Amino acid sequence: MNVLFTQNESELNETEIQSILEDMITTHKAKCCTGKVADYIPELGKANENQLGISICTVQGQLIEAGDVDSPITLQSISKVITLALALMDQGEQKVFEKIGMEPTGDPFNSIVKLETISPNKPLNPMINAGAIAVTSLIKGADVEEKLERILSFIRKLSGNSKITYNKKMARSEEETANLNRALAFFMKEHGVIEGEVDHILELYFKHCAIEGCCKDLARIGAVLANNGKDLQTGETIIPLHIARICKTFMVTCGMYNASGEFAIRVGIPAKSGVSGGILAALPFKLGLGVIGPALDERGNSIAGVALLEEMSQRWNFSIF
Amino acid sequence: MNVLFTQNESELNETEIQSILEDMITTHKAKCCTGKVADYIPELGKANENQLGISICTVQGQLIEAGDVDSPITLQSISKVITLALALMDQGEQKVFEKIGMEPTGDPFNSIVKLETISPNKPLNPMINAGAIAVTSLIKGADVEEKLERILSFIRKLSGNSKITYNKKMARSEEETANLNRALAFFMKEHGVIEGEVDHILELYFKHCAIEGCCKDLARIGAVLANNGKDLQTGETIIPLHIARICKTFMVTCGMYNASGEFAIRVGIPAKSGVSGGILAALPFKLGLGVIGPALDERGNSIAGVALLEEMSQRWNFSIF
Amino acid sequence: MNVLFTQNESELNETEIQSILEDMITTHKAKCCTGKVADYIPELGKANENQLGISICTVQGQLIEAGDVDSPITLQSISKVITLALALMDQGEQKVFEKIGMEPTGDPFNSIVKLETISPNKPLNPMINAGAIAVTSLIKGADVEEKLERILSFIRKLSGNSKITYNKKMARSEEETANLNRALAFFMKEHGVIEGEVDHILELYFKHCAIEGCCKDLARIGAVLANNGKDLQTGETIIPLHIARICKTFMVTCGMYNASGEFAIRVGIPAKSGVSGGILAALPFKLGLGVIGPALDERGNSIAGVALLEEMSQRWNFSIF
Amino acid sequence: MNVLFTQNESELNETEIQSILEDMITTHKAKCCTGKVADYIPELGKANENQLGISICTVQGQLIEAGDVDSPITLQSISKVITLALALMDQGEQKVFEKIGMEPTGDPFNSIVKLETISPNKPLNPMINAGAIAVTSLIKGADVEEKLERILSFIRKLSGNSKITYNKKMARSEEETANLNRALAFFMKEHGVIEGEVDHILELYFKHCAIEGCCKDLARIGAVLANNGKDLQTGETIIPLHIARICKTFMVTCGMYNASGEFAIRVGIPAKSGVSGGILAALPFKLGLGVIGPALDERGNSIAGVALLEEMSQRWNFSIF
Repeated sequence: MNVLFTQNESELNETEIQSILEDMITTHKAKCCTGKVADYIPELGKANENQLGISICTVQGQLIEAGDVDSPITLQSISKVITLALALMDQGEQKVFEKIGMEPTGDPFNSIVKLETISPNKPLNPMINAGAIAVTSLIKGADVEEKLERILSFIRKLSGNSKITYNKKMARSEEETANLNRALAFFMKEHGVIEGEVDHILELYFKHCAIEGCCKDLARIGAVLANNGKDLQTGETIIPLHIARICKTFMVTCGMYNASGEFAIRVGIPAKSGVSGGILAALPFKLGLGVIGPALDERGNSIAGVALLEEMSQRWNFSIF
Repeated sequence: MNVLFTQNESELNETEIQSILEDMITTHKAKCCTGKVADYIPELGKANENQLGISICTVQGQLIEAGDVDSPITLQSISKVITLALALMDQGEQKVFEKIGMEPTGDPFNSIVKLETISPNKPLNPMINAGAIAVTSLIKGADVEEKLERILSFIRKLSGNSKITYNKKMARSEEETANLNRALAFFMKEHGVIEGEVDHILELYFKHCAIEGCCKDLARIGAVLANNGKDLQTGETIIPLHIARICKTFMVTCGMYNASGEFAIRVGIPAKSGVSGGILAALPFKLGLGVIGPALDERGNSIAGVALLEEMSQRWNFSIF
Repeated sequence: MNVLFTQNESELNETEIQSILEDMITTHKAKCCTGKVADYIPELGKANENQLGISICTVQGQLIEAGDVDSPITLQSISKVITLALALMDQGEQKVFEKIGMEPTGDPFNSIVKLETISPNKPLNPMINAGAIAVTSLIKGADVEEKLERILSFIRKLSGNSKITYNKKMARSEEETANLNRALAFFMKEHGVIEGEVDHILELYFKHCAIEGCCKDLARIGAVLANNGKDLQTGETIIPLHIARICKTFMVTCGMYNASGEFAIRVGIPAKSGVSGGILAALPFKLGLGVIGPALDERGNSIAGVALLEEMSQRWNFSIF
Repeated sequence: MNVLFTQNESELNETEIQSILEDMITTHKAKCCTGKVADYIPELGKANENQLGISICTVQGQLIEAGDVDSPITLQSISKVITLALALMDQGEQKVFEKIGMEPTGDPFNSIVKLETISPNKPLNPMINAGAIAVTSLIKGADVEEKLERILSFIRKLSGNSKITYNKKMARSEEETANLNRALAFFMKEHGVIEGEVDHILELYFKHCAIEGCCKDLARIGAVLANNGKDLQTGETIIPLHIARICKTFMVTCGMYNASGEFAIRVGIPAKSGVSGGILAALPFKLGLGVIGPALDERGNSIAGVALLEEMSQRWNFSIF
């Protein structure tokens, strides 16, 4: 372990960190009952609302875990960061930002208002649903299957977990409850933000939202982003430096829904959450974090997960600011 | 100089840095002519549109300057960061964030729409006009004079420049063209966001927007923020750590008007701009930057100043992400 | 009485009408308790919530009254129709509609959103607060006093009641609770919709909103509008035909706040309501109506007054559609 | 001919009216060149931009025509009035207005903003696209074919023209360019405003927009509305009185897109326009009007058609206000 974890100016060893984490999990798990599992997609409603787990992965590849780290979740909005990286690698910055903006928004993640009122009518950023659907339309591949396979390969490489796949039942459940996303997609189709078949783009979108991972997978992906896109073992570039940086920037400015500003102030670590209760965080140059806690606060973030990250950040001085 | 400035993996000395900065100034000054000096406040329209200067101040207190660094500008929106720090010190986080939000917004800095449509009707963040007016209402003091004196003392301490004062002609010019700010203030008064006399709050607001400084002043204030709020010489705490951090966070999420997201991606340094063409930036733990270039791009930021900072960030790897 | 009032195809005489009206008052008065007196202006809160009265005035000048017709109310938004007529007579259609639009809006009467989002930034119509403030700024006169005197003379002429004046206590109460109207006015001042001193315009606005009248006055003004602007006795033109028509048109498209569409469907008589619980209605070519019932529904219209007018319209086939 | 058409207080005979109409057509036809044929649906772009024709049909069934009255157009938005009448007859007022509001809006006819920002999320009225799609979903019938057949029968009965049908090429062209309508429909599906298959509802919507008629057909439908829903010859009730009234009310408050308020002021006749350049108008108790002039003004109404109606209204005092 590197000197990241110091307390009262003395360095902590792995056992000490592990023990502190276990204590924190116990403390913050109590908050789960004040949150609520997302249930607008029926499959999501089946999550265990008392689960709370964390994995830390340093850029050197060391892993420390505590709590309920073994039950996987679907990535949901967390996949927005990963598909953004892939789309930027596939198409280049210029093409991507011609279609999708770079600015945060005070509007809800699934809002359609700004698509109509802002000129040109492009999504404000890739972390809201409209932007992520547009990003999805830019992934290369002959058909939905090939595109999905490319996203899966990319995630498997980032996480070092070759078994990662998507949850078919969840993807179907998303598809069945996705009228708002259809509205966003057809609106963007009208304005030339997306090209191609709306149905195919949404099929791919629902499937990559349904990709499953557990805390460890999230932490490892976060560590690769923290490591400027390089593989933790081999140093091979999985994501080019400037693209890894773009991802971390969006994670700060709009990664935590309408609590991104507050999270940046209270925690100060680039992070992306999903309604399944997962959070993927990347502390630049240092470590990746994967948190899973399905009970959500009213803004859609894991209620216990955010509290846990806030305590960690304050105790170990993790804020990048 | 510390090892911040390395090029081709070899450390640069002060003379080398100075010389590189001079070259950059020459390059980017050419962009001034594609921008436009703000003139909605008549006094602002008198600025020299070809001016471009930069000061760098390390947390150790070393200063390097290049270009037109001697003509002062009025702080305009840059004062929003400083009054936020003071209000947080005066009233505490809880009181301040009861009245003003923490979230970025895709709306213009002077927009009134969200004040009406968001519930509760509070300004989304302290970097937009509505939020900054609300912050101004929270500065302690018996009357406008005493409050202004407290802001001035605070800025003098931060910049180490005891001569800093405000430009009376500019303050008057702001007052005469401030109907939109009056609308924002009365709207907030209606909704209980601000208390006290609207006219007094706005008088103070116009005066602190008219405080004058030059590149060096901006750079030194930035360096104190970068130094976690501590005086560069004495180490005395001028701004508590957590408040300095809050300021830097808002500078990233909403410091550059509606180009904050793009600036975070392309430059990656916490920064606040003003329509006078100034930019105050703070690279955490490392240095402060003060840039002045009155010709603005269409989003209200110094056109040459942003280009200069982007080149510096890429050359010397300054991004915090 | 003319043949307006027929029931089962036989004409009603005045006594019969009177008796039917008394019955209706009894029926609908019971609804008062389900409404709520406006209290955002403290003086308004003192109104008698159980009051319900109606006056009918035919274009021949006959008057029938029933219920509580003697307690006056302040006109509030009803004065918007009268000042519109005067401003049109003072400045002509072209000048007035350069500053104020002609279109209904789905937004609340005191909303500021559209002022910002619509281009050009002019109020959508003269029946919302912003539009009425702009109309007020167009009334001719050397100063507030003279302008107010002109409005009062005009209303006295329309109502045939030389004693009409404004309620000073109410005007003061309006002024003290008028931050939203100030916000609207300064916003319009910024965009050139209004000229002159905002404070003077608002003083005049508050005073004409506080003009007092009772059912009879409202009915007589309505009858003049119904009579194409001509005095009921002398036939003298008080309001030119085309201006009387404009007033009646706005009363249909936007006279009843955000229930204008529904009122047009259910009642079908041009009408303007005020938060004091008054309604002034004008059935073209036939009669004027004045209703007072201070208990309001959730959209700001007299709850019993609307019900009464709906029954009258259906019974006597008053709809213009 | 009844006494509707008087000039200088003397009654005009049919030949005189005809001759005046011919002159007006000549005058206003010159305005066609300042307008523009709609071309967002490719088939619409093929219209003859110099066409201008008018039919007048009295409630007694007399018909006077002038100009280019023989080329049919597709109804486009004009079908919104007819399907509203049928849906009200099919489902009753309560059911229809549970799903669709009664209030005009200052927003564009194809706007989605209010669907998101207004609570409950229902379309403001049946004359905007969202509202008309919701109305379409309420037409009774086993399948699209049967529902369309019912709409066609209804129009044939209203117009007395048994040959009326829809233009298949136009319906297909609409379908191919209808992403915005799809967005609106899926948004409403999400919020429970519409039930059933979005694709089927839109198919029916596109087909009824593509129903073809010429001036005479429009005038006759208008005359039935003017005649309180009764057949001009037989007196049979085709549309119940209160439903005919509802239709005419919406025609006033929101029949002419975002120029409804201005049209009510300048013309004062209940009317509904379509982007094909048609206008169907109904002067209560008196006559129906059908105008076709495909060159549109910037708000989507027939530029020469509106001017023609304005002159007619002023000359013959047609305003209902």
